[in-house]
Amino acid sequence: MPEFDLITRYFAPLAKSPAARGLRDDAAVLPVPPPGHELVITKDMIAAGVHFRADHAPDFVAQWLMAVNLSDLAAMGATPLGCLLGFGLARDTPESWVAGFALGLGVSITTWDCPLLGGDTISGLAQHVLSLTAFGTVPTGHALSRGGARAGDLLVVSGTIGHNGLAVLRHFLQNRHNEPNWHFINPTSEPAPTVPPTPRLALGTALRGVATACADVSDGLLADAGHLAVASGLRVEVDLAAVPVADGWAATEAAHLQAVTAGDDYELVFALPREKSAELLTLQQQLGLKLTVIGRFSAGAGVVVFSAQGTDITPDRHGYQHG
Amino acid sequence: MPEFDLITRYFAPLAKSPAARGLRDDAAVLPVPPPGHELVITKDMIAAGVHFRADHAPDFVAQWLMAVNLSDLAAMGATPLGCLLGFGLARDTPESWVAGFALGLGVSITTWDCPLLGGDTISGLAQHVLSLTAFGTVPTGHALSRGGARAGDLLVVSGTIGHNGLAVLRHFLQNRHNEPNWHFINPTSEPAPTVPPTPRLALGTALRGVATACADVSDGLLADAGHLAVASGLRVEVDLAAVPVADGWAATEAAHLQAVTAGDDYELVFALPREKSAELLTLQQQLGLKLTVIGRFSAGAGVVVFSAQGTDITPDRHGYQHG
Repeated sequence: MPEFDLITRYFAPLAKSPAARGLRDDAAVLPVPPPGHELVITKDMIAAGVHFRADHAPDFVAQWLMAVNLSDLAAMGATPLGCLLGFGLARDTPESWVAGFALGLGVSITTWDCPLLGGDTISGLAQHVLSLTAFGTVPTGHALSRGGARAGDLLVVSGTIGHNGLAVLRHFLQNRHNEPNWHFINPTSEPAPTVPPTPRLALGTALRGVATACADVSDGLLADAGHLAVASGLRVEVDLAAVPVADGWAATEAAHLQAVTAGDDYELVFALPREKSAELLTLQQQLGLKLTVIGRFSAGAGVVVFSAQGTDITPDRHGYQHG
Repeated sequence: MPEFDLITRYFAPLAKSPAARGLRDDAAVLPVPPPGHELVITKDMIAAGVHFRADHAPDFVAQWLMAVNLSDLAAMGATPLGCLLGFGLARDTPESWVAGFALGLGVSITTWDCPLLGGDTISGLAQHVLSLTAFGTVPTGHALSRGGARAGDLLVVSGTIGHNGLAVLRHFLQNRHNEPNWHFINPTSEPAPTVPPTPRLALGTALRGVATACADVSDGLLADAGHLAVASGLRVEVDLAAVPVADGWAATEAAHLQAVTAGDDYELVFALPREKSAELLTLQQQLGLKLTVIGRFSAGAGVVVFSAQGTDITPDRHGYQHG
């Protein structure tokens, strides 16, 4: 189907913001952020066969794409302002896939109040390659960063860790019953429904002026805690037994090490000064979101993982290996 | 090679703006535009095998990617502010390709004063898929659009048309000497060097308050003139003999019709009130850029092409067919 029709039929109805100019101009024109605010911008791409499977539902893929980008805005403490879509379609994609994608995108736009402002489409690719650029605002000077933690700060994570890692493991193992990694999974558990991640936007804005460093958990909890440590010039210590691991993982150290290195959690991991630890409970109640102290920052470098017995059980691999 | 190394080695050195935060945070933080300005944002993707050939030099591909995006900013009358790169690499790409791409990107960043602020990388794709998001500013309310032309306005185009179309045609025909389309090419001409397009940024800003409608020529001169006509609710008439066609095309009507529908020119096509036609010469001298009146807008709808004899020779196809 011609790209002009595809835009008119599926994406123009989603681009209702005046800044999008009906998708009819060469670019979108965004009003400046309110006085005293800065613009926060991020861009994440996902590809079929790399980040999602060909059999994932298109509405799920669209919501995933939006969530991974909004999660970056959340990690910076920003409020969404709008987005641009780069829609690269594999050849011979049925129109129903496009319709499903547009449906999911529409749900995300409404849920997260992040209007579609424009973008570009390509068809005839060897695989789907989807790109999103998301814009947000933050009061000037109040963007969170990875680099502000101080020695003595607590390491805190939102929600639970390993939900998506478990789904990936289940899918990988589903036709290999003799695979040794089966013992990572609680044998009495049922597969959880596949749901797109929830970007922690309300938490991100609440952490402005509270957290000293923040990142979202995309590469793996240990890897992303490590990013905070590197950027802050510190060492980070993680108590594995304290990590809130998602249901379905076996109750073993080996399984939990797998969960904290699997990635794609899109929770926030942040540094909190000890004197602000009382605020955690308030925040948790306000947001209806679990916030768990899982470790601390200290002088030095690197990531160290401790067992419940205080033994150093740091694995070699801290997260998803890019490359 | 791991993506973290790739970013550190090739892209972090290009991301010198403080807004990029050394590519170490989850997003870039851009200062707001100067008071009284709006933000203009655009996103264009290109893919190997669709928009460029696998044997195109990587520095050329990078400059092309930047040019097609900056051309959209030019069409809106905006001044570049920065960009985000989505870098999707085909599997088994040699590092020299990445190095060449980064070199070309660095040239574009410097030439067009458009700092790299961040982005994302994927490797292991079936083909290169590259995405850029470009940001610019324009004084509030002064962005050009496609929809402001009035009946009686002149149709003007910058530079020459058909340079890239000719290169594509030459490549397509090079091993097919009996192909009938050879007669589109001037037999005494030599192939022109392959150079990235020049985004007409200085012209775009100069047209603020002067042109009533503007677009860049990406789909084809007739197609993009047609976009101005549709958005303005008018008909546009093009005098084929007036169009400044690039050297190398045969001096025939059929060849020139091919040139004005080939696309990828990245010149600006705009509507100019007749009473401002004297300003064309001034602009042309200031910018050192040819500006040619090639037609006019009138009441009605559609695109009409006239021969030198005033005959209607409108072709069925107005430009590159998306899809």
